[in-house]
Amino acid sequence: LTLTLVKLGGSLITDKRKKEFLEKKTLARLCKEIHSARKEKRIELVAGHGGGSFPHYPAHRYKVMQGIHNKNSLKGFALTNDAAARLNRIVVKELIKAGENAVSVQPSAWLVAENGKVKASFTEPIRTYLKNGLLPVPYGDAVADTKKGIAILSTEQILGEIAIKLKAERFIVVGRTRGVFTDDPLKNKKAEFIPLIDSHSYSSVERMLKGSYGKDVTGGMLHKVKQLMALSRKGIKCQIISGTKKGNLKKALLGESIGTIIQ
Amino acid sequence: LTLTLVKLGGSLITDKRKKEFLEKKTLARLCKEIHSARKEKRIELVAGHGGGSFPHYPAHRYKVMQGIHNKNSLKGFALTNDAAARLNRIVVKELIKAGENAVSVQPSAWLVAENGKVKASFTEPIRTYLKNGLLPVPYGDAVADTKKGIAILSTEQILGEIAIKLKAERFIVVGRTRGVFTDDPLKNKKAEFIPLIDSHSYSSVERMLKGSYGKDVTGGMLHKVKQLMALSRKGIKCQIISGTKKGNLKKALLGESIGTIIQ
Repeated sequence: LTLTLVKLGGSLITDKRKKEFLEKKTLARLCKEIHSARKEKRIELVAGHGGGSFPHYPAHRYKVMQGIHNKNSLKGFALTNDAAARLNRIVVKELIKAGENAVSVQPSAWLVAENGKVKASFTEPIRTYLKNGLLPVPYGDAVADTKKGIAILSTEQILGEIAIKLKAERFIVVGRTRGVFTDDPLKNKKAEFIPLIDSHSYSSVERMLKGSYGKDVTGGMLHKVKQLMALSRKGIKCQIISGTKKGNLKKALLGESIGTIIQ
Repeated sequence: LTLTLVKLGGSLITDKRKKEFLEKKTLARLCKEIHSARKEKRIELVAGHGGGSFPHYPAHRYKVMQGIHNKNSLKGFALTNDAAARLNRIVVKELIKAGENAVSVQPSAWLVAENGKVKASFTEPIRTYLKNGLLPVPYGDAVADTKKGIAILSTEQILGEIAIKLKAERFIVVGRTRGVFTDDPLKNKKAEFIPLIDSHSYSSVERMLKGSYGKDVTGGMLHKVKQLMALSRKGIKCQIISGTKKGNLKKALLGESIGTIIQ
C-alpha cells in the first residue's frame, strides 16, 4: 500500500469571515466522499485539516506566530491550541459518523518547531495506526518552538513532515477553487487557471502569487505551492483541487488528475 | 524548579455510574485550587486527568483493552479515543477559565504501547511547554500498541512516563477518598486508612488490595498503588489525597504531607 495525504482546507470546512463558523454540510459531504472512496479501493490515508475561523481569531489577536513576545502570548497560545483542537473534535466526529475509524493526532503533542519550522517529530503513533487500518487526523496547530517559545505550523507543514517520514506517494490539498490561478479567482475574474506547476514554471508562478491571494496566519496560496513544490522534489505527487464541487475529492482519491498538478 | 505531576481522578471529575456525566463544580474548584497554588508559589506542573465515565463506556463495550480482537475493535478504539479527548477539552477549558495557560498533550499522539505498557514516547513538546511556563494536560487514553494493535493506558502510566523522562520530584494523585484504605471505604465502614506505604509494608498492602476496590478498565486502586510504588523506587515522592475536600489539592501542591504517602 502507498500512503496518500489529504488536506481539507480551513476555508472550505469553516467560513473564515465568521468566528468559529462551521461549514457543516460541506464537511459532512467531504467525510462521506473519503469513506466512499475507501470503500471502493483500499487507500492508506492520513486526513488532515486546516483550522479556518477557529484558531485564526485568537492567533491573530495575540499574534501567536510572532512567538512569545508579551505577557499575553501564552494565553493566546492556549486559546489558539484549544480552538484548533475543538475543530479537530468536530472533524473526527464527522468522519466517525461517515463510517471511518478516525483518530486525532494532535500535532503539538508529537512535534516541536524551531523558528516556525518542524525541528523534531515522533510519527510512531501515526505509523502504527496506518498499519492497523485506522485513519489519523492531524491539523494545522499552535506548537511548542525551541527558539521563539511558540509558533504556528500550517497543515501543509505538518502533513509535509508526515509525507517525508512515512514516504507518502500523494498529497491532495482540497480548497475552495479549482486549483491554482494566476490571481485570486474569487476576486479577479481575469485570473487564469494553472493546470500544472513544475520545476520549469515554478519561479514564474511564484512571482505571480507573491503578495497575492488567500493570505492568512499560515501564509496563503504561495505558502501552499511552496510547500508542495518542495515535497514534489522528493517524489511526492501533489495536487490542489476544489472541494466545493461534489465528487471531486472522491475522484482525486481514486486517482484522477483533476485540479492543479504540482510535480 | 522541580517538576510536580498531578492526576485528577476520573471518578472525581465525572460520575462513573452515569455516561459522560461531568462533576462540573468539583472540576471547576480543583482548577481554581491549581491556579491559586501556582499564584502563591512557582510550581512547575503537569496536570493530568482520568477519563471517568467518558471513555469507559465505549472502552468497556468494545473491550478495547483486549486489543484488536474483532471487526468492531477499531470502531471501539476511535470512539474511546474521541470520548477521552472530549473530556480533555472540557478540563483544558476549565483550567484556562481559572487563569491557567493550559495545553492538551494527547497521549496517543506522543506515545506507543507494547502489550499495554509504554514502549516509546516523545516528550519534547511537554518539556518545551514547561520551560515556557505553560501547563501541559495529558490524560488516560486509548493508544496505538505495536503488539496488540490498540491498548488503554491509565493516567498513572502516562504520567509515570513523563515523571521518569522529565525527572519529576512529586506525583499527587487526587481521588474521592482520603488516600489508600485496607478496603473500599465507600463500601466497607470497617476499612482502615493507611497513612504510609513503603517498601517494607508494600507486599502486605498489595495482598489487602487484591481483587479489591475501584476496579475499572485501567485497574483500580491496586493498579494505582503499584504504579506509584514503582515511581517512588525511582525517587519520586508519591501521594494519594482526596479531592472532595475543599483546599486539599492546594495544600498538597504547596507541600503538605496529607493523604497516603508512598515512598
